[in-house]
Amino acid sequence: MRLAELSRRSGVPTATIKYYLREGLLPAGHRVSATQAEYDEAHLQRLRLVRALIQVGRVPITSAREVLTALEDDSLDHNSRLGTAVWALPHGPEPTEEDAAAQEARRTVDALLAGLGWANAQEYADESPAYRMLVTAVATLSRLGYPCAVDDLAPYARSGHQLAVADLDLIERYESPDRQLEAAVALTVLYEPVLLSLRRIAQAEESNRRYGQGSTRA
Amino acid sequence: MRLAELSRRSGVPTATIKYYLREGLLPAGHRVSATQAEYDEAHLQRLRLVRALIQVGRVPITSAREVLTALEDDSLDHNSRLGTAVWALPHGPEPTEEDAAAQEARRTVDALLAGLGWANAQEYADESPAYRMLVTAVATLSRLGYPCAVDDLAPYARSGHQLAVADLDLIERYESPDRQLEAAVALTVLYEPVLLSLRRIAQAEESNRRYGQGSTRA
Repeated sequence: MRLAELSRRSGVPTATIKYYLREGLLPAGHRVSATQAEYDEAHLQRLRLVRALIQVGRVPITSAREVLTALEDDSLDHNSRLGTAVWALPHGPEPTEEDAAAQEARRTVDALLAGLGWANAQEYADESPAYRMLVTAVATLSRLGYPCAVDDLAPYARSGHQLAVADLDLIERYESPDRQLEAAVALTVLYEPVLLSLRRIAQAEESNRRYGQGSTRA
Repeated sequence: MRLAELSRRSGVPTATIKYYLREGLLPAGHRVSATQAEYDEAHLQRLRLVRALIQVGRVPITSAREVLTALEDDSLDHNSRLGTAVWALPHGPEPTEEDAAAQEARRTVDALLAGLGWANAQEYADESPAYRMLVTAVATLSRLGYPCAVDDLAPYARSGHQLAVADLDLIERYESPDRQLEAAVALTVLYEPVLLSLRRIAQAEESNRRYGQGSTRA
């Protein structure tokens, strides 16, 4: 297909597609004349992933390029490619202070992971952006007067594990390893608002059950 | 306590506290002289909440003011104050297009809520920002080539409900209704990065279990 059709089918304006091509986020098309190139289904798929990362996930261009590079790194096995790509996604603010709250948060998170028997997470703690994000979040809670203990975090970790199982079950429906890797990155980002909105809807439902006037359940 | 001590105990610079006072996010102190005011524990608590909303939750000043106004609205009962305050929090991008994907997403979400028997969520669907956020996220997934059916969303809804139960259990530890309301708003925002990081950590753990070389679990 030509650029115009790629734009129509993806819903991405041609100027934006040209920008992604210049930035190396999308591989060049197959040149058919001095001024025209031909694109295929793989381009369309990649364009959708780039759009998911940048427009929905608000991933910066440089991080998006890192994610895509990891997906194509033939020197890594499937599991490592997936891990490297997800690690390149943004993970919120980096830890700022190594104060008492940060040290206590690290001890709490380490005790949580040990209690869960998450051996992989413990082994890669020092390098993992998700581990740093968790320590930062727990330290912030404590600084703001909401300290949380291992037992407070445990139900969130259990839900996290159920979500991960659901995520990987969804991803395994895609047949080729390449499509699975793309789906893993896209669904990690795109299911975040699904999850956060369902939590808020469920909060209102549960709050109504506990404290409501009962009128809506009559 | 004086402004300097409020700043020291909260970790918020005095210039920022003065800004919050001017913007009406923090009630004025008790004036003790022409140039000095006295603050109490309630000011410290409110300041922590404002900081959680603005610095961690990236809630805009105007939304923060709406949240705080709802918390103090004596005309509402506890459950309604909580709902109004959480509704005033940001909920991601508003739906942009009412295209086929959006209409299909609405049908999917409605079928999900009906299947779960979430009567409150169904009744308030038209007004709920979390419902709109969910429809927008499902429509985006579909436009990007990842359509999701009711059965795909069900495990995320189940996790959402478990999280809501954990959230309300945490909140109920606070004794006074006012402290519970503040905690509900703060913990809704502050536990989002906890949850998202635990999901990513669990993904790596589960991916390693399914596809890993086994080396880290030997």
